[in-house]
Amino acid sequence: MTGASGASIVLRAPAGIGEVRPAYDLVGLVIAAAAHDGWSWRNGDVVIVAQKIVSKAEGRFASLDTVEVTDQARELARRTGKDPRLVALILAESVEVLRVARDVLIVRNRHGVVLANAGIDRSNVPQDTSKERVLLLPADPDASARRLKAGIDARCGVAVAVIVNDSLGRAWRQGTVGIALGAAGLPALEDARGQRDREGRPLQITRVGLADEIAAAASMLMGQGAEGRPLVLMRGLEYARRDGAAAELVRPLAEDLFR
Amino acid sequence: MTGASGASIVLRAPAGIGEVRPAYDLVGLVIAAAAHDGWSWRNGDVVIVAQKIVSKAEGRFASLDTVEVTDQARELARRTGKDPRLVALILAESVEVLRVARDVLIVRNRHGVVLANAGIDRSNVPQDTSKERVLLLPADPDASARRLKAGIDARCGVAVAVIVNDSLGRAWRQGTVGIALGAAGLPALEDARGQRDREGRPLQITRVGLADEIAAAASMLMGQGAEGRPLVLMRGLEYARRDGAAAELVRPLAEDLFR
Repeated sequence: MTGASGASIVLRAPAGIGEVRPAYDLVGLVIAAAAHDGWSWRNGDVVIVAQKIVSKAEGRFASLDTVEVTDQARELARRTGKDPRLVALILAESVEVLRVARDVLIVRNRHGVVLANAGIDRSNVPQDTSKERVLLLPADPDASARRLKAGIDARCGVAVAVIVNDSLGRAWRQGTVGIALGAAGLPALEDARGQRDREGRPLQITRVGLADEIAAAASMLMGQGAEGRPLVLMRGLEYARRDGAAAELVRPLAEDLFR
Repeated sequence: MTGASGASIVLRAPAGIGEVRPAYDLVGLVIAAAAHDGWSWRNGDVVIVAQKIVSKAEGRFASLDTVEVTDQARELARRTGKDPRLVALILAESVEVLRVARDVLIVRNRHGVVLANAGIDRSNVPQDTSKERVLLLPADPDASARRLKAGIDARCGVAVAVIVNDSLGRAWRQGTVGIALGAAGLPALEDARGQRDREGRPLQITRVGLADEIAAAASMLMGQGAEGRPLVLMRGLEYARRDGAAAELVRPLAEDLFR
């Protein structure tokens, strides 16, 4: 029995986060849910929150009834079969339309993330009786993660990392997986360049999307439906104490071979 | 405090799997490493093994010195800067070349998986003094997962799930993440179609790449370098007791918008 020693990671999804409304204190909600679950904070803990509750706390609702529908939106709505008002909102959140097909509208959003419908969601959005509402992504998910980290660190006297995750589709693989829209307190992209394998060769895989792996792991516990658990706490992950941001995970346009 | 109750997942990477050689009993290695780590098996446990040790146990080595280099391989080697013998092997494992650039050769392999270099790896491959060796992916990773599951189930008297994972790059995101090349004993693609959200609307996200999320979670513990831990045990994941295969995760060619 030689080589690396064993290692463990624990993921915990506390109960007790109900419907989140605009201007709710997300830091307080996370701390209360963790406390109710018996969690005592340690340095290096990772907090993963679903994009949806971050967006709700930040009041990122939009009403379909007040959207101005452009000609481009009308044309894309015809080709996709989607609501023209929704398409107009998607375009307003996007810098580039990558693919259009029946039921499919894949864009690059203003943060460079490639995703369907600019991440705009109609499910689990409480409806006003008079207006149809949708939920946009946080305006700046890395900033959301940083604020959440700063609040938890200050109130709990620790240094945690925070991931804001969402579930996205992939180009060649079926099913969504959790990815990091926002990150703070850890390297989102882990750089192993310069490391060597057991044979002394340089490693082929040199950069790991660590924050995306964390987001995917948390997504296993979060679920999607009515029983969704929008908060996951993680302990045991080894990571470099370098601060980072999910923006590191966005491939630069010049290196995009699949536009 | 209403709604879903709390939930936990534990991931454990035992020490004690050394260099794996052809014809090694992988089932026995996994069981021994788990036992040495104090793991007592339960129904529903998930075993994640790195592709590399599966390939090694299956003897999937190839020698660069005996490869016949085709004209296509020579041309692609020129454009990518890669070893023409390696390119010839990559082509032999592939059904389609998707993108070619300096240092980049992205293909669809015979199982439909889109990945760089057909997953052929030169790092952590023990070298013969006379021949340069590389490691191919398992010939049929879903079959590898099924065999491993059958062996563990039979010898330990449980029903586990098995994932064979690997780290792949993505089209628009930097860094690799763990994905499932092979799966057995669980639904690789979890279907939530028909489920409704808390407001009674049909869910927008209806299919989750569960096996890929498991693979990514395990990858956090496995590492890439000399300290790699090629085995991860997972407990606490809720999943439907439907058998599945990683082949479910491959998007059908007709639905591929990014060829």
